[in-house]
Amino acid sequence: MRGRVVGVMGPGAGATAADCELAGALGRAIASEGWAVLTGGRPSGVMAAVNRGAKQAGGLTIGILPGRDRTLADPNVEVVINTDLGYGRNNINVLSSDAIVACGMGLGTASEVALALKNGKSVILLGCNPTAIAFFQQYGGVQLKIAATVDDAIRELQTLLMPPQDPPDSSP
Amino acid sequence: MRGRVVGVMGPGAGATAADCELAGALGRAIASEGWAVLTGGRPSGVMAAVNRGAKQAGGLTIGILPGRDRTLADPNVEVVINTDLGYGRNNINVLSSDAIVACGMGLGTASEVALALKNGKSVILLGCNPTAIAFFQQYGGVQLKIAATVDDAIRELQTLLMPPQDPPDSSP
Amino acid sequence: MRGRVVGVMGPGAGATAADCELAGALGRAIASEGWAVLTGGRPSGVMAAVNRGAKQAGGLTIGILPGRDRTLADPNVEVVINTDLGYGRNNINVLSSDAIVACGMGLGTASEVALALKNGKSVILLGCNPTAIAFFQQYGGVQLKIAATVDDAIRELQTLLMPPQDPPDSSP
Amino acid sequence: MRGRVVGVMGPGAGATAADCELAGALGRAIASEGWAVLTGGRPSGVMAAVNRGAKQAGGLTIGILPGRDRTLADPNVEVVINTDLGYGRNNINVLSSDAIVACGMGLGTASEVALALKNGKSVILLGCNPTAIAFFQQYGGVQLKIAATVDDAIRELQTLLMPPQDPPDSSP
Repeated sequence: MRGRVVGVMGPGAGATAADCELAGALGRAIASEGWAVLTGGRPSGVMAAVNRGAKQAGGLTIGILPGRDRTLADPNVEVVINTDLGYGRNNINVLSSDAIVACGMGLGTASEVALALKNGKSVILLGCNPTAIAFFQQYGGVQLKIAATVDDAIRELQTLLMPPQDPPDSSP
Repeated sequence: MRGRVVGVMGPGAGATAADCELAGALGRAIASEGWAVLTGGRPSGVMAAVNRGAKQAGGLTIGILPGRDRTLADPNVEVVINTDLGYGRNNINVLSSDAIVACGMGLGTASEVALALKNGKSVILLGCNPTAIAFFQQYGGVQLKIAATVDDAIRELQTLLMPPQDPPDSSP
Repeated sequence: MRGRVVGVMGPGAGATAADCELAGALGRAIASEGWAVLTGGRPSGVMAAVNRGAKQAGGLTIGILPGRDRTLADPNVEVVINTDLGYGRNNINVLSSDAIVACGMGLGTASEVALALKNGKSVILLGCNPTAIAFFQQYGGVQLKIAATVDDAIRELQTLLMPPQDPPDSSP
Repeated sequence: MRGRVVGVMGPGAGATAADCELAGALGRAIASEGWAVLTGGRPSGVMAAVNRGAKQAGGLTIGILPGRDRTLADPNVEVVINTDLGYGRNNINVLSSDAIVACGMGLGTASEVALALKNGKSVILLGCNPTAIAFFQQYGGVQLKIAATVDDAIRELQTLLMPPQDPPDSSP
């Protein structure tokens, strides 16, 4: 079976130290589950941190670049897609992920959360501020999950991404 | 000189009666200023209302469709652009507008407000709820304006779109 | 009824003097029929020539730019769409046109002719070299037309774009 | 070092048996060199054949889908990118490849060869008809290579993709 892909969206240059620490731990945890990490691919902020974490744990990393120059990708991105779409690539980021984690918040991330929900994808807000949570809860319905820790986020992803289990055998 | 283009973003099927009433008045007012209206082009909600208003006042209407079939455009759209980009076209909506008004709020509109601000465009939130205003004020800086009425929105647009005036002649 | 849109594709910097002369006459003729002209929007070669011709005859001109800066559009483009898609915008050029005329040939034009035919659009090759004609005739079927003069191209467009006529009244 | 990516473009439903046989051998040979294969991702024609070949030889396969449903990808594609761009994704196919091989010819393939050359990429025409070769030789310059066999194509790719060798040590 083709592997699962978790999109991790978050600020680039505007990321806080806390965002990056969460992202690094998230990358390691996602890779440990055997899932690939997909990001916007640039060597900055949450993207760089989650890719570094994923590579530390031996995971596959996919990066969807806004431009057309592979050498501008984060060095820890293994599969680089050059789109030359600018921020138009944000829609591809979410469409190519089985589920999305927003790690921190900013304008690019907000566009990706909104596009993901609009496209019917599940989104986990990790380490997002209360105003962001309140805003997206107005529109996200059951597709929107809130996580306070990386462990919480991984549990949500396990539920979202795991194949349905056979029911326990109830035959006598 | 090429005419100015105001992008009006807002919910489609999810628009409220109040959103549509604002959008109709906004379309008439934008056209009365001599500016074109640009929308996502579908015959629904805020898009339909603002195009109807603009046509009533003799304005030019531009629609950027998510699909590839011109006959699915709102009948009041005069210039139809078929993108076949799905929601990827939201970035084109904002890039092709000189300034953006969000009339009401939803997931598609949220993505457009975020992309517009990310792209350096000015955005006016008209008739948006306090949570949406609080959310975007975290990131929008001086590019973000709040308007309670269509008149407020037009005044903001006049400031944004009018060419600089020559200083009054102070020669004796 | 919404007006018809003719996409005119052709070389930019690589256009010959003959390409540009044809394009100017084509622009005037398209506008005289009451149809809009749609191009890739840059101030160069066939795009510039066809827009200048169309404006001379009072026509509407639409330009789909590869970038995001309206000031880089050809000055004779009235409706400017900023895509920020690079050559990805070539697909939008053809999808947004009711029929396409290739005026001269080059790599960008070849991609547009191929995408237009692939998308089911009719394409008229005007002033194209025999090798280009032979190549596209392998794949174009009845969607592909060959024109030696602007008059020929306009006659083909009239057939393609005119609404069906009512049959003559045969009642006694 | 990040691995090299060879884009293989060719007809889907219109592929001939000869196209598919070449594509299967090409996929095996590319994977044997340690390079990834990138295609338009659909389970049809040249795309399906080259992915099957590459997987037989243990290679990495990347597919750039026109739509948004991962389950429509060819089963031998390991990394699936959902673009929802329709044929607009053809530009991403070529931008994300270090070099391109056209295996057979059709309208989609023609658009990709033209876009690749326009974007400055090297293209190898493998098993293409003389008219197609003559057409693209008008515009392709040194970026365009002609190959009659898979071995020829691999030799061209080796020259294009191999890092420059250190000069032989001439010290005594």
